[in-house]
Amino acid sequence: MPTKIILDCDPGHDDAIALLLAHGNPNIDLVAVTTVVGNQTLAKVTRKALSVARVAGITGVPFAAGCPRPLVRQIETAPSIHGETGLDGPVLPEPTLQLDGRHAVDLIIDTIMAHEPGEITLVPTGALTNIALAVRKEPRIVERVRQVVLMGGGYHVGNWSATAEFNIVIDPEAAHIVFNEKWPLTMIGLDLTHQALATPDIARRIAAVGTAPARFVGELLTFFAKTYKDAQGFDYPPVHDPCAVAYVIDPSVITVRKAPLDVELAGTLTLGMTVADFRAPAPADCSTQVAVDLDHEKFWALIVDALERIGDPPQH
Amino acid sequence: MPTKIILDCDPGHDDAIALLLAHGNPNIDLVAVTTVVGNQTLAKVTRKALSVARVAGITGVPFAAGCPRPLVRQIETAPSIHGETGLDGPVLPEPTLQLDGRHAVDLIIDTIMAHEPGEITLVPTGALTNIALAVRKEPRIVERVRQVVLMGGGYHVGNWSATAEFNIVIDPEAAHIVFNEKWPLTMIGLDLTHQALATPDIARRIAAVGTAPARFVGELLTFFAKTYKDAQGFDYPPVHDPCAVAYVIDPSVITVRKAPLDVELAGTLTLGMTVADFRAPAPADCSTQVAVDLDHEKFWALIVDALERIGDPPQH
Amino acid sequence: MPTKIILDCDPGHDDAIALLLAHGNPNIDLVAVTTVVGNQTLAKVTRKALSVARVAGITGVPFAAGCPRPLVRQIETAPSIHGETGLDGPVLPEPTLQLDGRHAVDLIIDTIMAHEPGEITLVPTGALTNIALAVRKEPRIVERVRQVVLMGGGYHVGNWSATAEFNIVIDPEAAHIVFNEKWPLTMIGLDLTHQALATPDIARRIAAVGTAPARFVGELLTFFAKTYKDAQGFDYPPVHDPCAVAYVIDPSVITVRKAPLDVELAGTLTLGMTVADFRAPAPADCSTQVAVDLDHEKFWALIVDALERIGDPPQH
Amino acid sequence: MPTKIILDCDPGHDDAIALLLAHGNPNIDLVAVTTVVGNQTLAKVTRKALSVARVAGITGVPFAAGCPRPLVRQIETAPSIHGETGLDGPVLPEPTLQLDGRHAVDLIIDTIMAHEPGEITLVPTGALTNIALAVRKEPRIVERVRQVVLMGGGYHVGNWSATAEFNIVIDPEAAHIVFNEKWPLTMIGLDLTHQALATPDIARRIAAVGTAPARFVGELLTFFAKTYKDAQGFDYPPVHDPCAVAYVIDPSVITVRKAPLDVELAGTLTLGMTVADFRAPAPADCSTQVAVDLDHEKFWALIVDALERIGDPPQH
Repeated sequence: MPTKIILDCDPGHDDAIALLLAHGNPNIDLVAVTTVVGNQTLAKVTRKALSVARVAGITGVPFAAGCPRPLVRQIETAPSIHGETGLDGPVLPEPTLQLDGRHAVDLIIDTIMAHEPGEITLVPTGALTNIALAVRKEPRIVERVRQVVLMGGGYHVGNWSATAEFNIVIDPEAAHIVFNEKWPLTMIGLDLTHQALATPDIARRIAAVGTAPARFVGELLTFFAKTYKDAQGFDYPPVHDPCAVAYVIDPSVITVRKAPLDVELAGTLTLGMTVADFRAPAPADCSTQVAVDLDHEKFWALIVDALERIGDPPQH
Repeated sequence: MPTKIILDCDPGHDDAIALLLAHGNPNIDLVAVTTVVGNQTLAKVTRKALSVARVAGITGVPFAAGCPRPLVRQIETAPSIHGETGLDGPVLPEPTLQLDGRHAVDLIIDTIMAHEPGEITLVPTGALTNIALAVRKEPRIVERVRQVVLMGGGYHVGNWSATAEFNIVIDPEAAHIVFNEKWPLTMIGLDLTHQALATPDIARRIAAVGTAPARFVGELLTFFAKTYKDAQGFDYPPVHDPCAVAYVIDPSVITVRKAPLDVELAGTLTLGMTVADFRAPAPADCSTQVAVDLDHEKFWALIVDALERIGDPPQH
Repeated sequence: MPTKIILDCDPGHDDAIALLLAHGNPNIDLVAVTTVVGNQTLAKVTRKALSVARVAGITGVPFAAGCPRPLVRQIETAPSIHGETGLDGPVLPEPTLQLDGRHAVDLIIDTIMAHEPGEITLVPTGALTNIALAVRKEPRIVERVRQVVLMGGGYHVGNWSATAEFNIVIDPEAAHIVFNEKWPLTMIGLDLTHQALATPDIARRIAAVGTAPARFVGELLTFFAKTYKDAQGFDYPPVHDPCAVAYVIDPSVITVRKAPLDVELAGTLTLGMTVADFRAPAPADCSTQVAVDLDHEKFWALIVDALERIGDPPQH
Repeated sequence: MPTKIILDCDPGHDDAIALLLAHGNPNIDLVAVTTVVGNQTLAKVTRKALSVARVAGITGVPFAAGCPRPLVRQIETAPSIHGETGLDGPVLPEPTLQLDGRHAVDLIIDTIMAHEPGEITLVPTGALTNIALAVRKEPRIVERVRQVVLMGGGYHVGNWSATAEFNIVIDPEAAHIVFNEKWPLTMIGLDLTHQALATPDIARRIAAVGTAPARFVGELLTFFAKTYKDAQGFDYPPVHDPCAVAYVIDPSVITVRKAPLDVELAGTLTLGMTVADFRAPAPADCSTQVAVDLDHEKFWALIVDALERIGDPPQH
């Protein structure tokens, strides 16, 4: 039976690919998509999410907009990586899906509470503002969620500072809330996603699919390659967010390690650092783990497979 | 026309008196009451709020329970001041009011959005967790609220630490959120409320009202006097929360001063301190002010008047 | 018998007056003068100290230069208050005194250790860098010092931030060290020194002394009045540093209150705040106190008296 | 020509081996040894340093005691690792060397200033309190020191917390001072020293030297193995401090990487973390580097060689 997930995202180039992977893979049942400020403003990322839904041919899934700003800190977006629209590069179609009337926080709560305990997996690939608000508004979601598999942080690698990753550092209080709840939580951080490089060979395999969504992904990767080269010196762009979806599809794609995790809220050099304690074997009741190694071939095979399954969806 | 207020509270002895004052004064239209963890657990303070409603004869006002824990920090309650029930001292009746089905955060948002801009005044007398969540979930409430008049903080006085007051320090991130929004905000802090002492003369005037609610207040003050004497060395107990309601009723009860305000989130000695900047005249666009001087006679006259108006309400 | 003091200063307009007061008052035996970076660079304040010594006719007292920068933080000086030279305004003579060959830290340690326990009072009127280094290098000075009477901080008043005073905030770690040692410590903070205003009447009384040093003080006050008006909106300039010397001369000049004191090192809004805990009577072993009220007339009478005693010293 | 070093240490089992290595290796000219509170109190580590000097037959080198406590924080020692004496395990002889009369801070300053620029290498293997005080008292040592090669910190590994190493976290302000001066600084952190494991084979090779100092080292390692097993779960004990000396002897023993370095002073989870910024190639003027890989064979060969050269020194 496919795993039911809520994808909470801020598209974003890699978020867009995560959405395509979640939609195209038969082991995933995408039950809701929610958006949050991050790579760009809430208005921009929400519009992009709906446009990507059209590209992918996603229908019948509620999309809802969430928080337009972090809990405590001022808004910080990432135009140096994702451009002014949040998804620069491809020409995107006008959205046809209508947003769900509910706030993302309520859609998340309602969806989790309407399912059986252990049914819903949360897959946040942006800042954790929506998830944090949901768990503070309705604490019972903690015990009903199957697990949280999030893209964010890094136990030894930062990008927005020497020690912190963008999704976490733009709303560290929200991350602190989510990391400290007692649900099973897997952190797919930069240590892992910097292994998910879209090499030229990968680009060729995606191009070979030959569909409109595949061309769209190709254009995303071309833009992403350029900004990652310019802003952070990468030879090939790391494609972060689909790694979280891939781990839900097939945990053998990613080697994980159990470790206590927490988020630094007070450091001058370390604000928003995701601190993993590797000094000893994790205690028996440790509910957090970090992603360590990626099976690069398996990962990209999942992406290509999803694109092949999606094919050329009819455009409404 | 009376001022419509939402009272967000955590009864609590002084919260109870604030509720009676809001109900009994003709210049206040109490449109909703919401509860938040603070003086005691959410379950306890919510039950106490409903019991006080019965004592006061409040009907037709929605009561809703809110957040059971602070945003980021661990729960800290105040049994040394309010006892194990949150309202030790008087024997309280079983509640007869039913809770509104909505979460306090949604009741706050719905109530504000259902009224015209400038109609609703928020009067928080506990931790600011509910208000913070409401404004993060629905940012448009900021421009619709008339003003926020809160009991909490202190510009030169602390109680839970040398520099911090209980309501603020138990959820400093929530306070930071509320203090940094652009609504008109009046902080009725300890600098002011430590002037609102229930002296023996006050107790006699309340006793002279001779009704069940007045006896209830008398019992509250007796208990409160003892814990404030034991825990903080006060000769007479400071009755904090009704000061915020009194300022809404009649601003001439309290002298205020405009000053930029913010909440310290990172200090070792100063976590949760409400920092007022008095170094220069407040800038023209300063939307925050602090309470400085209380008209003790006017204040207590309002309390006695409210009790007289409430009389002995029929018990349902 | 006069009280032996080491004056650790960063002249600085008010430091200069403190030096004149210490030299001119018969109850003070000035045994050493040390300088520290603060109002201006170490080179500038040291040169100014020597020039002031010549104006005052100070001979036979060792002067030593100390730390050119704070312990941990970057250098921050106060040209907006003291001008580019650190003592703008008067024309100053070339120094004739030679500096002691020792580092200020060693002169402080040697002087204290060469005297009997309880003989030496430390009077720091600048950042506490020298004193902190001295006590870390030679911890035994703590029990030998009679008391520390310092100008700095403020329990309810800041100048360099809403909560912090210049001398403390430019080297908060040094202040933390000094405030946490077990010597008797009196903090003469802004709460007090903002009462030590040089009104026009004071200026006239100083002018009436009619000597070169009095004219020098007059010129200092004229310059100081202008910068305090421009930078902080004062009608008359507060003359901070001599208050500390005055308290050593005659404790009845200043009302003090015992209270635990500490220095905030981690706050975002409160870095360098001197936190006094007034919530309860100070514990019996509390070794710290704060200055509360100034006897304005007695204070300025001491200044005028010192100038009269100094007269017109012969110039070497 | 051998490299002149000042060894600033807190023996400590691995400090003792560092001292033996520095004494026994012909490429090192040990010009001074200074002690600092750390693994045990200053009195204990100083006494142990003198005893080790006797074991090693060190004469003609000034030893001086330094700071008995950290700059700002309270004292924290490491009896769980080094025992109550600071060097539990071997029976140690009474010291015969007399301490130099100077404070370690002055011995460090005097030694550096008495040599030509570029002659003296500082090798701190304990907390950086002495070095920090020296550089604040005499800033000119920065440009005269050849380099600082210190044992402490870790860019991805902590021991006293998830992110911090003992030497740094017990005096983070001192470390911040030392790391932020512009001298060439090599951090030999836990990332490196956890590779310097004293395996049974190493123990056998040391035993085979057959001298009293070698037996002493053998006893040190036996004790160290037990505490590291018990306290931190190591199979073989990491022998930290000699790695710093080894790098001075022969840089090819350790692979290093240039990176900006700083020390976190404000974090809740990260206080005392040594933050290396690996996000991009280090800037051209970067004066800091971290140790990455150890040549295990070369390293232990240096230790064995030093013990062989020391032989059985005559006991005075």
